[in-house]
Amino acid sequence: MAQASIANSEFDRDTAVTLREEGVYDAELSAGWTIFGAVNGGYLLAVVGRALGDALPHPDPFSVSAHYLSASGPGRAVIRVQTVRSGRTLSTGQASLFQYTEDGTEVERIRVLASYGDLDALSDDVRTTAKPPAIPPIEHCLGSEDGPAPIPGSAAITERLRLKLDPATCGWAVGAPSGKGEMRAWFELADGRDADPVSLLLAVDALPPTAFELGIKGWVPTVELTTHVRCRPAPGPLRVSIVTRNLAGGFLEEDAEIWDSADRLVAQSRQLALVPRG
Amino acid sequence: MAQASIANSEFDRDTAVTLREEGVYDAELSAGWTIFGAVNGGYLLAVVGRALGDALPHPDPFSVSAHYLSASGPGRAVIRVQTVRSGRTLSTGQASLFQYTEDGTEVERIRVLASYGDLDALSDDVRTTAKPPAIPPIEHCLGSEDGPAPIPGSAAITERLRLKLDPATCGWAVGAPSGKGEMRAWFELADGRDADPVSLLLAVDALPPTAFELGIKGWVPTVELTTHVRCRPAPGPLRVSIVTRNLAGGFLEEDAEIWDSADRLVAQSRQLALVPRG
Repeated sequence: MAQASIANSEFDRDTAVTLREEGVYDAELSAGWTIFGAVNGGYLLAVVGRALGDALPHPDPFSVSAHYLSASGPGRAVIRVQTVRSGRTLSTGQASLFQYTEDGTEVERIRVLASYGDLDALSDDVRTTAKPPAIPPIEHCLGSEDGPAPIPGSAAITERLRLKLDPATCGWAVGAPSGKGEMRAWFELADGRDADPVSLLLAVDALPPTAFELGIKGWVPTVELTTHVRCRPAPGPLRVSIVTRNLAGGFLEEDAEIWDSADRLVAQSRQLALVPRG
Repeated sequence: MAQASIANSEFDRDTAVTLREEGVYDAELSAGWTIFGAVNGGYLLAVVGRALGDALPHPDPFSVSAHYLSASGPGRAVIRVQTVRSGRTLSTGQASLFQYTEDGTEVERIRVLASYGDLDALSDDVRTTAKPPAIPPIEHCLGSEDGPAPIPGSAAITERLRLKLDPATCGWAVGAPSGKGEMRAWFELADGRDADPVSLLLAVDALPPTAFELGIKGWVPTVELTTHVRCRPAPGPLRVSIVTRNLAGGFLEEDAEIWDSADRLVAQSRQLALVPRG
């Protein structure tokens, strides 16, 4: 499939922000990135990440910490950005995304602290003991088009992604969850656009929740999500691996790693999420 | 040794904050918690955590994300706290800690977003696959008093802690780093005060940097540190395990886990840090 350019990428179009005045950006959250009617938290973060990248002196997200305050819906949004500190290597910013009630009152959806830098300025020094996730070849993994839908059909976001799940983490889709808090997938944007640092903010939160493989159904709302982008991703499909080790007291963590086609660890994230009751 | 009560705990005394007016707290950063003259980032976070716990309707830190802006020194500080959202289960706040230049200008040291809740209100449901770290009994681990100082003597903070390092992660102290990005220790406050949720914010950042075991010397400044407190710690010594898997492009992550004497995973944290050059 031909790669999308910026002009025809639905991801770029749907995460676009427009400068209204210094530090204030308008955006339109697209209904295309919803799950059960709520806007996906990773997509939301990518929209905020675009505004931060425009406002800060450095272009790339290095560390982005988001606290989720209320569920977002499709429609108009405004992002207010503050530059907290401008340094040589890194700059730090703060951003909030608001939507509107019927009478026009602003309601805050997400608040973000972020440190931005320049990924192209990093040294080539790599000393890692991390290993890419064990995931079968993409042709042996399962998408929503492969029979018993591994991703609920009610999620519009499935049409925006080429998500191919490891069959070992698909048990939940046929009523046989593995009992392990693991989810692995090949990830590409459906429009064929290659991954960039901002799209990694989407990718860390775009797989079905690990809770599904623990036999838990329903929405698992994110409390906090921090993503570290460690390297500019190479073209080609990404591998995303998410692990939950501790479900306790009604909360769980999701630890995500993203690896690119050059076998580089390009992003790490952790989120704290609320387990649905019952 | 007798346990310290709140009245005679140096940790409580040195992290105390005084309400000046709504949302504004005064503090005095103690020289007792410095490393090479800079105030330890975990101690700093505990001071901010105290202010947030006072200002927010919920008492306990659940998820605390901190971006470090400039190095702190001992002396006067002011913490400005904003309540972002008050919910039933969680409330979210933002805090900044400032110090002063010679002419009295405020300089921001750290900015924090945090979600607070009530740890005592959590269900007893625990389903974890996480295992406590493999660390020898405390009597086989090494403190600064045990011969070739495993912790630099120039760090005042070593006198505030009863830190006993796993000999397997002490090679750096005798010029023979293991080459593995691992650091493990038994952790107690030297004043004998039992751990509580706020002291966990210190404990996640109180061990020698994993970089030492990778053969890297010097200060490893924190860019961002997020801590999730998952359970109120039981009395007794904590076990802290820190792992670095990816050192790349001049940055590394430190993933910390803290386990209590009841074998519960009480905190998880991850930080992104800058690797010193050369």
